[in-house]
Amino acid sequence: MRFIFPTIAVLLEASMIVLFGFFVKYETEQNAIQQPNSTNSTKVDRSLELYPLFQDVHVMIFVGFGFLMTFLKKYGFSSVGINLLIAALGLQWGTFVQGMVHRHGQTIYIGIKNMINADFSTATVLISFGAVLGKISPTQMLIMTIIEITVFAGNEYVVGEIFQASDIGASMTIHAFGAYFGLAVAGVLYRTGLRKGHEKEESEYHSDLFAMIGTLFLWMFWPSFNSAIAETAEEQYLAIINTYLSLVACVLTAYAMSSLVGHRGKLDMVHIQNATLAGGVAVGTCADMKIHPYGSLIIGSIAGMVSVLGFRFLTPCLTAKLRIHDTCGVHNLHGLPGVVGGLSSIVAILLGVSTASSMTMQAAALGSSIGSAIAGGLITGLILRFIVRGQPSKDNFFDDSVYWEVPKEKELDNV
Amino acid sequence: MRFIFPTIAVLLEASMIVLFGFFVKYETEQNAIQQPNSTNSTKVDRSLELYPLFQDVHVMIFVGFGFLMTFLKKYGFSSVGINLLIAALGLQWGTFVQGMVHRHGQTIYIGIKNMINADFSTATVLISFGAVLGKISPTQMLIMTIIEITVFAGNEYVVGEIFQASDIGASMTIHAFGAYFGLAVAGVLYRTGLRKGHEKEESEYHSDLFAMIGTLFLWMFWPSFNSAIAETAEEQYLAIINTYLSLVACVLTAYAMSSLVGHRGKLDMVHIQNATLAGGVAVGTCADMKIHPYGSLIIGSIAGMVSVLGFRFLTPCLTAKLRIHDTCGVHNLHGLPGVVGGLSSIVAILLGVSTASSMTMQAAALGSSIGSAIAGGLITGLILRFIVRGQPSKDNFFDDSVYWEVPKEKELDNV
Amino acid sequence: MRFIFPTIAVLLEASMIVLFGFFVKYETEQNAIQQPNSTNSTKVDRSLELYPLFQDVHVMIFVGFGFLMTFLKKYGFSSVGINLLIAALGLQWGTFVQGMVHRHGQTIYIGIKNMINADFSTATVLISFGAVLGKISPTQMLIMTIIEITVFAGNEYVVGEIFQASDIGASMTIHAFGAYFGLAVAGVLYRTGLRKGHEKEESEYHSDLFAMIGTLFLWMFWPSFNSAIAETAEEQYLAIINTYLSLVACVLTAYAMSSLVGHRGKLDMVHIQNATLAGGVAVGTCADMKIHPYGSLIIGSIAGMVSVLGFRFLTPCLTAKLRIHDTCGVHNLHGLPGVVGGLSSIVAILLGVSTASSMTMQAAALGSSIGSAIAGGLITGLILRFIVRGQPSKDNFFDDSVYWEVPKEKELDNV
Repeated sequence: MRFIFPTIAVLLEASMIVLFGFFVKYETEQNAIQQPNSTNSTKVDRSLELYPLFQDVHVMIFVGFGFLMTFLKKYGFSSVGINLLIAALGLQWGTFVQGMVHRHGQTIYIGIKNMINADFSTATVLISFGAVLGKISPTQMLIMTIIEITVFAGNEYVVGEIFQASDIGASMTIHAFGAYFGLAVAGVLYRTGLRKGHEKEESEYHSDLFAMIGTLFLWMFWPSFNSAIAETAEEQYLAIINTYLSLVACVLTAYAMSSLVGHRGKLDMVHIQNATLAGGVAVGTCADMKIHPYGSLIIGSIAGMVSVLGFRFLTPCLTAKLRIHDTCGVHNLHGLPGVVGGLSSIVAILLGVSTASSMTMQAAALGSSIGSAIAGGLITGLILRFIVRGQPSKDNFFDDSVYWEVPKEKELDNV
Repeated sequence: MRFIFPTIAVLLEASMIVLFGFFVKYETEQNAIQQPNSTNSTKVDRSLELYPLFQDVHVMIFVGFGFLMTFLKKYGFSSVGINLLIAALGLQWGTFVQGMVHRHGQTIYIGIKNMINADFSTATVLISFGAVLGKISPTQMLIMTIIEITVFAGNEYVVGEIFQASDIGASMTIHAFGAYFGLAVAGVLYRTGLRKGHEKEESEYHSDLFAMIGTLFLWMFWPSFNSAIAETAEEQYLAIINTYLSLVACVLTAYAMSSLVGHRGKLDMVHIQNATLAGGVAVGTCADMKIHPYGSLIIGSIAGMVSVLGFRFLTPCLTAKLRIHDTCGVHNLHGLPGVVGGLSSIVAILLGVSTASSMTMQAAALGSSIGSAIAGGLITGLILRFIVRGQPSKDNFFDDSVYWEVPKEKELDNV
Repeated sequence: MRFIFPTIAVLLEASMIVLFGFFVKYETEQNAIQQPNSTNSTKVDRSLELYPLFQDVHVMIFVGFGFLMTFLKKYGFSSVGINLLIAALGLQWGTFVQGMVHRHGQTIYIGIKNMINADFSTATVLISFGAVLGKISPTQMLIMTIIEITVFAGNEYVVGEIFQASDIGASMTIHAFGAYFGLAVAGVLYRTGLRKGHEKEESEYHSDLFAMIGTLFLWMFWPSFNSAIAETAEEQYLAIINTYLSLVACVLTAYAMSSLVGHRGKLDMVHIQNATLAGGVAVGTCADMKIHPYGSLIIGSIAGMVSVLGFRFLTPCLTAKLRIHDTCGVHNLHGLPGVVGGLSSIVAILLGVSTASSMTMQAAALGSSIGSAIAGGLITGLILRFIVRGQPSKDNFFDDSVYWEVPKEKELDNV
């Protein structure tokens, strides 16, 4: 058992070296004939302009997602540590797979834009990771990363190239996809008894504060996420403004709803950590459309409420009825708001604010994202459960000490 | 009681949607006739150039202020959580009120610069929040946000447009204003017995480390805060360099003074978390003036010393004599250094390093900022105490469990 | 004793004010005759373009290094606090000394590039600080900062100007130099018994999570560190891509190796916090060379493995055999990977991928960096041990309460 994880990690890295050796070159090596109107230096300059946006997205991936998941009192090392591990793999594999799909198997010329797209493909896996957090082994996560990014790249190609759908902030292709993929895997990996709750599935005071580090960096940089791959300056500007507005509105309704549905009007940290971000997800698909500033506020307001209601009523129901245990509640942060995002774009087109796509194609994109996610997730779950194996026993769920040397005081907590 | 907070939060958000619906449009919709020399695309480009600076300021607002206030052992959820809530409201209301004041009631065309200015107006509220931290309800904070930003926008207009005073880093209009406003509110909300200390008004080891996250992000990005709205590249350059230098000098004198006035020469975390930032405040007003690099070092050195002395000698005195209890010591981080900032600008003009304003106008700006803050704060305090009401009882001061579901181990701390 | 630290801190700051008064001016004051081809405004614009990169590096210095060292359970205040103190001094002294060396004693015109270089010189001290963490007084650290940066600037001048060696990411001049300087000081300050371990030299669960904040900000922004002073856009682009790739590869091999050498295959937080960064160090010297994307992956893969093996086998050996106790294991994060970086550049030149320097000069640069570091460190150690003095007693090693007021619960830990 102790040799499986290092062996697979080293083999995967060795494969990346081979694949990059054959297929990946510097952007500056690209033959000028292929892009006759742009010299190397202007290409590099344009690439470097994206670097600050890349860094914002990068912070979301590593600090944002990593710390958001540290809310569990005994699973902080894995949350931030396995997040780093699978992101590092995902960035390499995402660069390769996305390059293959978009360049039809030819040489990939890597630039900052590829790095942003690789962060996006990785985000999908990290969302799904939230659904299975604490119930899966690091080796299983490495395999899931490889499979999920492959399916993601396929769906993204279908949505963007075939349907020509509009999804600048990837509400459908990243958020809804990642959530439903993770839920499907979680369903297959379900263990009896989880519906009764698990004694280690709890936060403690400081683990909730660590999680807020993740929440805030995600919240602040979400406008960069939704605008990073905009093609024109105006679209980028719109995506920034709309996302910013959706997020601020979302905070107010999330707080209101959390207090409303809470015990004696008290706020719940789970809602604050997650539902305040739903506005960023929900405005994603139409972030570059002229939906008016108040339109963004409305989308954000709805997202904040839907997300809290999901946490309060839907998540317990999913576990009890469908035997799907969603550790971080990704369905409420990414799933439902992702669907709201797709539907918003249909409404926006209906109202005539955008002609970039058609209602049919947007609906097809939403369907394709959810459909491929569920199918891909089910297959992945079966592979992880019956082929890869090595899932921890239920008693060891949500417990770092299975995979990490942990300081004495946390081991004693066990007793 | 449990319905008041959600009702007010939802009503406020609904009002924002209506106001934005009537008054706020995209920058790109602005009629080219109004600004004949700039096309839409150059306007957007210029707007996007400000985006990295906006993000730096944004990080200061949410992570900086939010975590700086987590030093209390039982009030971390509220510190970072209510900070997020009131900032989200403040950004919307600030955009609207500042737009109304500067555009004389006409349509507001929102761009990145408005977003930076909204962050500024919000910073004022967050400073005042520090003075009343732990002693006020979330509902009261929502109302205070609305009132304070309105008064702030009025004073800012007087200082900038009528007095034509110079205050690039807003030492007077944000820092001194926010501090004295908060102190006035704290004075009105004072409860007997606070001068003897409160058992929950303490830090613990890790809460002090969380607070250092806030300190460091404020410290690092302060040059962005002071330079974000500079009009020329040279002014921006000067504001960055001067702020940077003032901050590094301030650290050394704050450490020296903390050790000097400390028990057996020991450093005090309260000083390190706060007084190391005083250099950023104090250099604010003259950050874009040619005060020479050594001039910035001198301003920072003075600020670091003044701030620590304030914490050690003035704050206890304010509570004992004036019945003003200043939880975070905002008088020492923002009040005194803000006054130092205003006075520095008068000295700078006296020495002839700037002709951008006159000594009289700078003095008037300082007086207006402090005067309107105290008057506004007193009125706000009375409104909160007698109209809004709902302040927690003194036993529940500095305690998250009044407003939040808190993990078991913190509830047990109470016993 | 209680007056020594404040006196020295104030004297140092006063000296900085005098030195800056005589030698440092604004970049905009530079006589146009000296640089006839560039006007003030283009100079300032170019300077401001570097500002986002500066901020990335700045975050690495204060949050990155500061929090990385908070892993000790009773030394978090000092780790992040003394880090801030010595960085604030180092930035001033570094600006001055580097300016003197490069401008041959003439006036220094300070711009963003000087601020980046000052951050670099400071990084060297912070690396050395890691080797002596917990075993040295704040006063000793102030003196060490002054001496080390002086030696650093001398070596950097020799490497860059005399040898004309290539070291864009400063694997040799910062990382190897800082590590071996710190090890030499640690050797001189060694106290008998450390080889048996020290009861306070331990992490706790949350101190390990605080350290991960440092790790992640260092990891994410390392591409900025290695590319910040690149002279052309293409070199900057290459440095970003190569560093990014080296880091992602490094994570996988570090995790694999940590599990392989760990007790029952468990991951060790010390490795994850540190060895995942070794890829950034090791690719530093040849980051701007065309080493191919797969070449970067190979360098990173090697660095991750070498670093974990160093932690597991070499560090205990250094303490036991050479009486060098390396608190943070800087030899494994900066020393060994720095040497790998220097050697990689020799291999790269051998393979013909760069003609920017010669193998001899790269070897000379590596030798000079290590040699001057060891010589400088030994002398500094002797000065600190016998002239400055004031080192805490061994019982007080790794304990904040010697220099800080600490909350009750940590004092009780002592009993």
